Amino acid sequence: MIEDYVIGLDLGSESARGVLINVGTATVEASYSCEYTHGVMVGELPDGTPLSPFWALQNALDYTQATEAILERLGRGRVILGIGIGCTASTPLPALEDGTPLSERYPEAPHAYVKLWKHAAAQPWADEITAKGGHFLSDYGGRLSANTLLARAAEMAAEAPDLWAETERFIEAGDWVAWQLTGVEKRSFSFAAYKAHYNTELGYPSDIVQGLTAKLGAPHPIGTPVGRLSATWLARTGIEGTPLVAMPVIDSHVVMPAAGAVSTGTLVGALGTSAVFLLLDDQGRPLPKGIEGMARDGVLPGFWCYEAGQASFGDTLAWFVRNFPLAPRREDNFALYNQAAARLRAGENRLIALDWWNGCRVPHADSLLNGMIVGMTLQTTPVHLYRALLDSLCFGARSIMEHLLKGGAKIDKVVLTSGLSLSNPELMQLMADVLGNDIHVPQESHLTAIGAAIHATVAIGLAADYDEAAGRFGARDFLVYRPDPAATLIYDTLYDIHRALETDPGNRQAMHGLSRLL
Amino acid sequence: MIEDYVIGLDLGSESARGVLINVGTATVEASYSCEYTHGVMVGELPDGTPLSPFWALQNALDYTQATEAILERLGRGRVILGIGIGCTASTPLPALEDGTPLSERYPEAPHAYVKLWKHAAAQPWADEITAKGGHFLSDYGGRLSANTLLARAAEMAAEAPDLWAETERFIEAGDWVAWQLTGVEKRSFSFAAYKAHYNTELGYPSDIVQGLTAKLGAPHPIGTPVGRLSATWLARTGIEGTPLVAMPVIDSHVVMPAAGAVSTGTLVGALGTSAVFLLLDDQGRPLPKGIEGMARDGVLPGFWCYEAGQASFGDTLAWFVRNFPLAPRREDNFALYNQAAARLRAGENRLIALDWWNGCRVPHADSLLNGMIVGMTLQTTPVHLYRALLDSLCFGARSIMEHLLKGGAKIDKVVLTSGLSLSNPELMQLMADVLGNDIHVPQESHLTAIGAAIHATVAIGLAADYDEAAGRFGARDFLVYRPDPAATLIYDTLYDIHRALETDPGNRQAMHGLSRLL
Repeated sequence: MIEDYVIGLDLGSESARGVLINVGTATVEASYSCEYTHGVMVGELPDGTPLSPFWALQNALDYTQATEAILERLGRGRVILGIGIGCTASTPLPALEDGTPLSERYPEAPHAYVKLWKHAAAQPWADEITAKGGHFLSDYGGRLSANTLLARAAEMAAEAPDLWAETERFIEAGDWVAWQLTGVEKRSFSFAAYKAHYNTELGYPSDIVQGLTAKLGAPHPIGTPVGRLSATWLARTGIEGTPLVAMPVIDSHVVMPAAGAVSTGTLVGALGTSAVFLLLDDQGRPLPKGIEGMARDGVLPGFWCYEAGQASFGDTLAWFVRNFPLAPRREDNFALYNQAAARLRAGENRLIALDWWNGCRVPHADSLLNGMIVGMTLQTTPVHLYRALLDSLCFGARSIMEHLLKGGAKIDKVVLTSGLSLSNPELMQLMADVLGNDIHVPQESHLTAIGAAIHATVAIGLAADYDEAAGRFGARDFLVYRPDPAATLIYDTLYDIHRALETDPGNRQAMHGLSRLL
Repeated sequence: MIEDYVIGLDLGSESARGVLINVGTATVEASYSCEYTHGVMVGELPDGTPLSPFWALQNALDYTQATEAILERLGRGRVILGIGIGCTASTPLPALEDGTPLSERYPEAPHAYVKLWKHAAAQPWADEITAKGGHFLSDYGGRLSANTLLARAAEMAAEAPDLWAETERFIEAGDWVAWQLTGVEKRSFSFAAYKAHYNTELGYPSDIVQGLTAKLGAPHPIGTPVGRLSATWLARTGIEGTPLVAMPVIDSHVVMPAAGAVSTGTLVGALGTSAVFLLLDDQGRPLPKGIEGMARDGVLPGFWCYEAGQASFGDTLAWFVRNFPLAPRREDNFALYNQAAARLRAGENRLIALDWWNGCRVPHADSLLNGMIVGMTLQTTPVHLYRALLDSLCFGARSIMEHLLKGGAKIDKVVLTSGLSLSNPELMQLMADVLGNDIHVPQESHLTAIGAAIHATVAIGLAADYDEAAGRFGARDFLVYRPDPAATLIYDTLYDIHRALETDPGNRQAMHGLSRLL
């Protein structure tokens, strides 16, 4: 008997991962990870050309190399029915109309490379577009983020006009990979709606960047195929059958069906170096400040989806542990700090921190804000401070949750996924205590890749819809952290203090004053 | 030729020090330090009787033992004309009318011992007296500190009424030592004015504590003799001549003439674990909040003197270095941190801290406030944080200075003394930069004892007045730190931010909220 499979690809920042799912048993039979040859390029290009601060680039061919390695490893000799792709965004590259990345022609030109989502140097152009304003910003918190295709296009057009003129396609890396695999160039509605501010009625915002619209393309719905894996790629990977490649989707969004979030009311948080929260809604409510974007049909067909986040999450804990180690080995320090911090009762450290180590997204949408800690005494210990940081991450999440509720959205379940949800059980218990909610943690380490595979099953018609696909292929095993009512009571008081500090204009003025010192 | 000498004694918290000054050459010929046998008693009494938190006691006989050792070491075979005493305060003890400390009769009773200035358990009684109010509080910031003889009397009368009834004398340790040395019981105006709120017109405040006034005594002016060293003590120490013992004075106050501050306009700061600032004035201006006391004739005859302070100074730096060491040895860490922090330009760390690790004296007079740091990012380093603490100590000092200026006092010179003024030159340079003033640091390590000796020279008529005595015996060698105008310009901006955070009611409400969690 011949088994049928789908493959899900998760094209992340440092590496790509893939899962092989047996369609008959609906189980993950294998997974494979592959680091990018050039990784994230900061500081300099491969040839030594220096990069300015705030730049973060990638090499487009790293994606196809990694994809080939994964497809070959997981697919050789197997019948693959579909391939799904989750990819970071906005991570656009300039290309020729045949798909050749501009960096192949101009390897010494920084602007010829892929700009990774965390490339922050486009901020001045984002601010300029925000200042001009426009109706197209209304669903995106009234401001343009540096992490958008629009801001990066404006940056390139201004800083490298010759290269911009030669650019025939300005395309998200996910779309570009699907194009390479199939020979078919299509734009996914996922990237277009959230990162190029495409509106179903009005199209792309016009007149933002000279010549941009001609370098884009009409968006196609998620859950549909881009095309079939080309003969070249079948040969290179040894895959059997004629798999369809599904419309790629933003990596953080692709998680939703894998985490069982296929209807309104389930808040899904992906907790990595930063944190992203997504919530489906059956209508598009006016955005409270700090909720960064919403679009219909971009995450799951028929639903609006709000996106919000914490700009520094695991990064904040890593910052503390790196600067104030208790033991020589980094991993030991996380365990030592987590365990010691978990032994403290809620409020025992008598500290409050605002988790703005990398700026504040909710509620202020202000990257010039930064972290603060209140309450130190001569009795305060490093563990007290670390616990304050853990607490602050939970307060930040609660702030997002309450923000969404205040805007009229419904939340009846909280699912937390990704790195810290599995590696830091102490933090998950605090999340339950601070949010006063059960926290559901899928016991899956490749949820993004599984989500990409789910998109493939819908695109190829193997499942009738996301509801069915999520039921069959999504996470089944959840660990549930339940709030301790006594701790929640104390955290309610602490959250009120946190809220007062968070909204106090004096502290924000001080932070602005400090950043003006530069 | 027979040389004449005076001896200055500095009865501190952990140890006593003495200097031997040759009257003819006006130089310090010898010094000697002696630790107290029982040190500061916290946790338990010598017999194991447990002490409640916030208690800090001393054993009266430790003072006379240490005094004997010092007088013997410095004075044996020498002609001593006078002995001066500087002593911590308020550090009172209950005694019988023959001078026997009550602890000799009741060694198992905590209330029978000396209450050290830092004994904080009297706070509830201080608060109760403050709540009742009274005109006598008007020169002391409108509130009674736990660190007063009045608060400790109220505490003892309430908690140990039987012992209080047996107490025939309630007396500051400095007065008690002078009594032991001379056989003459007198009360110094220094302690009476600053620690028992004695007013020249109105006397001691009455009706504060049942029976207290009968256990006190009329205050005598500073710069006068208590009496001659008794025959017993001459025999025990081997001292030649018949030295007069001068009226004892609070240790932090006795520094003034030794630091050359014998007229209005010189702000003197003593920088230890905490910091005390003193400023002479020719009139008693209304006290701005946070300036803790003022009295006429208590520090130098004819002058009013304001007292203010920072509740945690060196303690804050020690807290950081102890919790976040860079190297195994504590002393190495101070040097490493100080040197690395000094290499940063003003504002380069982009952090602001409020130095309230042990509560805030100026401007809020509120022990429930605590420390805060604003401005952390993922780029912040331990050295950045340490520099923020150094800066915060300077901002705290500037806050006191500006407070005094706003109240109408005149400041035309800043002298900084004690531990950190000599051990931390990097901090002294920052003080110059932040205060925008030359900082004069006397190059003397026994300034308190020298100040006590100066008091003796006036009391015995060797000098006509403090002006003359300070000129002859005070510090001659000052290191001057001059402000860097470029740094001062940046610090003016940072101080404005500091000032805004310091006065922001939201932050104080948060701190109060945290302390209510207890």
